[in-house]
Amino acid sequence: MELLERMIRERGETRPGGILKVDGFLNHRLDYELYREIGAEFKRLFESAEPTLILTIEASGIALAMTASLSLGIPMVFAKKSKTKNLDPDLLHASVVSFTHGGTSDVIVSKRYIAPTDRVLIIDDFLATGEASFGLISIVEQAGAKVVGIGIAIEKAFQGGGEKLRAAGYDLHSLARVKLEDDGSIDFLPDE
Amino acid sequence: MELLERMIRERGETRPGGILKVDGFLNHRLDYELYREIGAEFKRLFESAEPTLILTIEASGIALAMTASLSLGIPMVFAKKSKTKNLDPDLLHASVVSFTHGGTSDVIVSKRYIAPTDRVLIIDDFLATGEASFGLISIVEQAGAKVVGIGIAIEKAFQGGGEKLRAAGYDLHSLARVKLEDDGSIDFLPDE
Repeated sequence: MELLERMIRERGETRPGGILKVDGFLNHRLDYELYREIGAEFKRLFESAEPTLILTIEASGIALAMTASLSLGIPMVFAKKSKTKNLDPDLLHASVVSFTHGGTSDVIVSKRYIAPTDRVLIIDDFLATGEASFGLISIVEQAGAKVVGIGIAIEKAFQGGGEKLRAAGYDLHSLARVKLEDDGSIDFLPDE
Repeated sequence: MELLERMIRERGETRPGGILKVDGFLNHRLDYELYREIGAEFKRLFESAEPTLILTIEASGIALAMTASLSLGIPMVFAKKSKTKNLDPDLLHASVVSFTHGGTSDVIVSKRYIAPTDRVLIIDDFLATGEASFGLISIVEQAGAKVVGIGIAIEKAFQGGGEKLRAAGYDLHSLARVKLEDDGSIDFLPDE
């Protein structure tokens, strides 16, 4: 997606260790023109898969899921992060290790909000090792529902997550596939 | 706002201690038709105040701020909750006590994302004692910017926050002003 790639190129900031900061337009201050286009692009990419529900993870996936929810005309659910292991039988949960923060979160969704008949589109801001996506996939499977697509704003290519998800057969689309060079420069790969 | 009041009446759940659960349509599973109408309603209420920026607080304010951002055509920033006192000089921060969870959070916003010229619309899901709103007002003031409106989805009337904000002269609008009765029933007051 050209607008997102341009913003990453012009305003993204790299840090040692494969960190890409996009706080100025995607993750802390959110650019409404970018978010309008992202909503339209997720609709274009996934409408034919006939999703009935969007699933994302707090906090930075919520705004992306909302713009997709409004453009696709389907509801969304966001998984909540919990520092404590929650054994409530009414909850679906998965453990997710954060690439950015290092720690492990228990990610929870109420069983009431994913039906076995749901066709679920997973949306998230970053894809690195794929931990968060596989956690959300597990939650969808626990609900007896089906993952019909995975939409990512920024895939960090060569961190393995994208390859694993594609190899497992998921219909994955990333709006920007970023390759961070050792000198701090940023390249892009085409969506697959 | 009639649709929101109807959903609260039909699907909201009350708990002892003044708790109102709206997880099924506003806060965990998000109804896209409701969110479309909320975006349109915030635009109707606040467009004439000429806001240039929306400020909210993670996590459950983000989707409301996004629908308002898309309908008003202005960017949004969300304040992040931090469990540790952060002394980074590039951050604006405020301490906020959560009515729901009891604990205190340090709420942080990067100085780069609110300009002194900004006219800020504060958006949040719940207004109870007003702690979160006054924290966000403090952050706007630290940035040298101006609060031109406060838009709330659900105001819990008689918990004091709405009265304090109106008395301080803020242009506050709540889409639903809820009065929780001792028997668990829910009444509504008109917006002021």
